[in-house]
Amino acid sequence: MWADESAIGRSPDTGGYTRGGWSPTEREATHWFLDQCAARGLSVESDGIGNLIAWWGASDGPGVVTGSHLDSVIDGGAFDGPLGVVSALAAVDQLRAEGFEPGVPIGIGAFVEEEGSRFGMPCLGSRVAAGVLSAEKALQLTDRGGVRLSEALEGAGIDPAGVGPSPLLKRMGTFVELHVEQGRGLTAPVGVASSIWPHGRFRFTFGGEANHAGTTLMEDRHDPMLTYAMTALAANKQARLAGARATFGRISVEPNGTNAVPSQVTAWLDARAADTATLESLLAAITKQATERAERDGTTLEVTPESVSPIVDFPAGMRDRLVNVLDGAPVLPTGAGHDAGVFSDAGIPTAMLFVRNPTGISHSPAEYAEMDDCLAGVDALAAVLKDLAQ
Amino acid sequence: MWADESAIGRSPDTGGYTRGGWSPTEREATHWFLDQCAARGLSVESDGIGNLIAWWGASDGPGVVTGSHLDSVIDGGAFDGPLGVVSALAAVDQLRAEGFEPGVPIGIGAFVEEEGSRFGMPCLGSRVAAGVLSAEKALQLTDRGGVRLSEALEGAGIDPAGVGPSPLLKRMGTFVELHVEQGRGLTAPVGVASSIWPHGRFRFTFGGEANHAGTTLMEDRHDPMLTYAMTALAANKQARLAGARATFGRISVEPNGTNAVPSQVTAWLDARAADTATLESLLAAITKQATERAERDGTTLEVTPESVSPIVDFPAGMRDRLVNVLDGAPVLPTGAGHDAGVFSDAGIPTAMLFVRNPTGISHSPAEYAEMDDCLAGVDALAAVLKDLAQ
Repeated sequence: MWADESAIGRSPDTGGYTRGGWSPTEREATHWFLDQCAARGLSVESDGIGNLIAWWGASDGPGVVTGSHLDSVIDGGAFDGPLGVVSALAAVDQLRAEGFEPGVPIGIGAFVEEEGSRFGMPCLGSRVAAGVLSAEKALQLTDRGGVRLSEALEGAGIDPAGVGPSPLLKRMGTFVELHVEQGRGLTAPVGVASSIWPHGRFRFTFGGEANHAGTTLMEDRHDPMLTYAMTALAANKQARLAGARATFGRISVEPNGTNAVPSQVTAWLDARAADTATLESLLAAITKQATERAERDGTTLEVTPESVSPIVDFPAGMRDRLVNVLDGAPVLPTGAGHDAGVFSDAGIPTAMLFVRNPTGISHSPAEYAEMDDCLAGVDALAAVLKDLAQ
Repeated sequence: MWADESAIGRSPDTGGYTRGGWSPTEREATHWFLDQCAARGLSVESDGIGNLIAWWGASDGPGVVTGSHLDSVIDGGAFDGPLGVVSALAAVDQLRAEGFEPGVPIGIGAFVEEEGSRFGMPCLGSRVAAGVLSAEKALQLTDRGGVRLSEALEGAGIDPAGVGPSPLLKRMGTFVELHVEQGRGLTAPVGVASSIWPHGRFRFTFGGEANHAGTTLMEDRHDPMLTYAMTALAANKQARLAGARATFGRISVEPNGTNAVPSQVTAWLDARAADTATLESLLAAITKQATERAERDGTTLEVTPESVSPIVDFPAGMRDRLVNVLDGAPVLPTGAGHDAGVFSDAGIPTAMLFVRNPTGISHSPAEYAEMDDCLAGVDALAAVLKDLAQ
């Protein structure tokens, strides 16, 4: 399964994956998933935005749901998302081979646009399903090519009229997401999540004055690139001081010509911290330094929050139950957002399993996990499902 | 004429112009020029890359050529280029109305892709015409959309097989380019150029390691955005110290995702100084600071010169002759490159006239010149042509 799935849409140049929600590569991975479900005789339910749950067990009452996502960041790794879907299928295979008969249905979910790499909103599918993002707002989102979400859905054969809170959630009695760890925090093969750090995406728009790069005196310029550059360095420094994370990984420059002082630089800050107070003071410190520099440069600055996710503390009962089933597996927080956080906030008893990442590299073609650790993840997930669905 | 020409391809959003060489907007401006020439009964000669000279006078011997370019930077102003073409047509109209009979032919040139905004090579048309850029190298240039120059030429109905040194140069006995000034250095309506500063475009490629923006510890990162940011600030500081110009106005980030530490940042440095030694020491100082920061960040840096133009000192004889005709007009250097520099280097006696720029803003929709100053420019150009073509 892994060999088949991880061959889909892989760039021959970088070895990475670019599977934006509802794009051809993401659709190919989704069709692979549907084929796998069909081969196992699982009945698949979908909702208005394209989230899927494949059921083992005929009852239509609430069940134990696992799974993850098949979309990726731009030029991302093989494991982030797909490992949770493939491991869920493998765990079900294992339980069936053992002759286990679940007391409640077991579902395998594939939730759309978790990374937000296409429409800029992380956990887009789960947020809409949980009703924390309205259909109206979601359908107005556009990708970098100017394609609206409604158009992307139509292109994938999904009627945008159906987008909204999802009936699938009523069937999610509990949710367990298995995911590759994304830092170097896990030294055992498998661990259990305690919490997800609060996380914000903020758009910094630096405005200046376009001018000729050859003839304009340095002291006559209002160059937003300089304000941006100082802000990127300030973000790094403030995150180090706060023991937090701050990244400017995306930028757009107008007019972006070699011989023109830019008129505008737009840059996106990804900021995360262990608690909300730290995140807020981090953003305030970066914004303060940026504003002071803008005054010196004669430029303008506007900071727009695009998404802010508060801390997710997974329920202690679920967490302890998993630790107990897994003979005292280590417990750790993560700086990465997940659909599990959205479902937990929606009141579904939720837990996460992490599989060790030896290098800590993620959102990169170099993302990696050992096969032995992945198999330990499948064993752990099977044991957890058996416990929850007994 | 000005109202007609400056309406072509103007962005309703910014008021600026984006006329890359051989693009639809640039072609529309070129067709406007050909119509103007036809209406005046001027015979137009073109060369293999699409440079044009429209002749007043039937002789095929060398003449006095004026003119400029019709292409623009991305979202540039109305005056940079077109003012020289429109003023040339107006000056010829004026001389004809006066009943002046030139002793040698007078030519009005429109030279292609002067800004290099599409194919990255400034003065592309004149460089190829003068034989300082080979047809082979020119035809391999690609624009940002991956379109080769040969394809762009074919799209404009020009056979790429004809690209090479131009027979038009043999007919350029002298060349005078009128251009809007691009700084605040000219306080009279019209001035004469002394020199063009040496100018280099250098591609800085910063390599790092893609990673997850939420989970990767700040101290584990190899983030090329930080190396770039420090380099942009260093360039500004070093240019101020040297009394020179250094600009990072164009950048490209991989993968350019909000939640990913970039794997690569490519940025283009535009650097200019009054003399070659200053330009070289400026580049060396910026490269040194960038390299030191790359070592600290664990990133890599490669600096590639894309084009380097040495200083152009316009011949004193031509310069003094123009100053004399114009009753002691002020003489000033410029930091901006021009086709006039290429033709001067090719041995054609060349001069430039500048029209005052009250704000000094250029390469921007806000670029501006007063109508009275533009009319003074036409009068000055007519006087110069009369003197040179007598």
